[in-house]
Amino acid sequence: MKAIHKKLPASVKNLEKQMRFLAEIEKLKIIYRWNSVLNGTRRENSAEHSWHLAVMAMLLQEHSDLKNIHVARVMKMLLIHDIVEIDAGDTFLYSKKGNTVKAGKESAAAQRIFGLLPTKQKKEFLGLWKEFEKRETPDALFAAALDGLQPVMNRYLTGHKWNKLSKITSSQVLEKKEYIGQASRRLWEYTKDLIALSEKAGYYTKPRNRGR
Amino acid sequence: MKAIHKKLPASVKNLEKQMRFLAEIEKLKIIYRWNSVLNGTRRENSAEHSWHLAVMAMLLQEHSDLKNIHVARVMKMLLIHDIVEIDAGDTFLYSKKGNTVKAGKESAAAQRIFGLLPTKQKKEFLGLWKEFEKRETPDALFAAALDGLQPVMNRYLTGHKWNKLSKITSSQVLEKKEYIGQASRRLWEYTKDLIALSEKAGYYTKPRNRGR
Repeated sequence: MKAIHKKLPASVKNLEKQMRFLAEIEKLKIIYRWNSVLNGTRRENSAEHSWHLAVMAMLLQEHSDLKNIHVARVMKMLLIHDIVEIDAGDTFLYSKKGNTVKAGKESAAAQRIFGLLPTKQKKEFLGLWKEFEKRETPDALFAAALDGLQPVMNRYLTGHKWNKLSKITSSQVLEKKEYIGQASRRLWEYTKDLIALSEKAGYYTKPRNRGR
Repeated sequence: MKAIHKKLPASVKNLEKQMRFLAEIEKLKIIYRWNSVLNGTRRENSAEHSWHLAVMAMLLQEHSDLKNIHVARVMKMLLIHDIVEIDAGDTFLYSKKGNTVKAGKESAAAQRIFGLLPTKQKKEFLGLWKEFEKRETPDALFAAALDGLQPVMNRYLTGHKWNKLSKITSSQVLEKKEYIGQASRRLWEYTKDLIALSEKAGYYTKPRNRGR
């Protein structure tokens, strides 16, 4: 997408940089994921997905098995975690090919897009993004758990059969989402319940070897 | 819209209530505003608008003329400020009729939707929403300023002439947005620059009495 921010008015240095960044991330609203919205008219985009996650962070801290969760940091991580998709695109979680090249493309994107910000804020945003990607700290593990649960909830609630998620087996979903248990056994149990209900409703495919 | 949350699995009491709320707010992604997205394929929705605002809150605190801004509280206010539109719909800012019935509809919506949450969180969310609506505290005034600026930035960046915002005059926009100056003279100056550029580009109509 072309650089839309260049036509913005001039201002004091920090504000000019911040507004260019805020203009650039307008693009995240047209980066579409594989999930869909309730009425089935379109796929979900990464901006509204990030919004949903940040509200989850406001609510679900009590279910974390990890101590010392800083809700504001988790919210910030989740609000910015997908901004790299503006350059790198959304990678389908179940695509092997897509996920082998994902890290390099996203890292370059983080440098370019967060690099629009004043130095101090660039460092903060890059730091939060890298922390999220590494999934090592309690905040990052908890943020990642929410990022794992939200699409499963969305899939069950929206359940449109035209969506290519219908062709994914429930065991693929379970395998990809198991890390949720590292942050919260309770949220992982809940996620498994949602996956089972979705499989029953035909929103995921039954694994071929079930019951053999 | 029908109550989609009733088909969710049972869980411990708080989690069950929180998940019902999180399912309910899935609907905000299909509440459309009068602004549009970059490629002009659709209008902007209130969920992605709220996401954009929360990222603005992460960045723009230094431009506030009001002291003691708590960024995390501002982010929370902005993330939840439009949830009432799930019941009340989005009211066009420049509609006199719409804005006379808005407050009552939104207040009932807040009671119903935040009422899905566990008591303590219901109180927190209702409190933040009411504080935002009243625009009296520094946090609420600053949050409202961002909520005033973002649509002006979006309008200038997207600028689709099919949008009914093209029929609004720049003086109507100036009048509606003047409150931004209560929180930040610098952001208000910047907003005025954007409005002038948008008028020049034909994204708002020139006032009839200009230069008489």
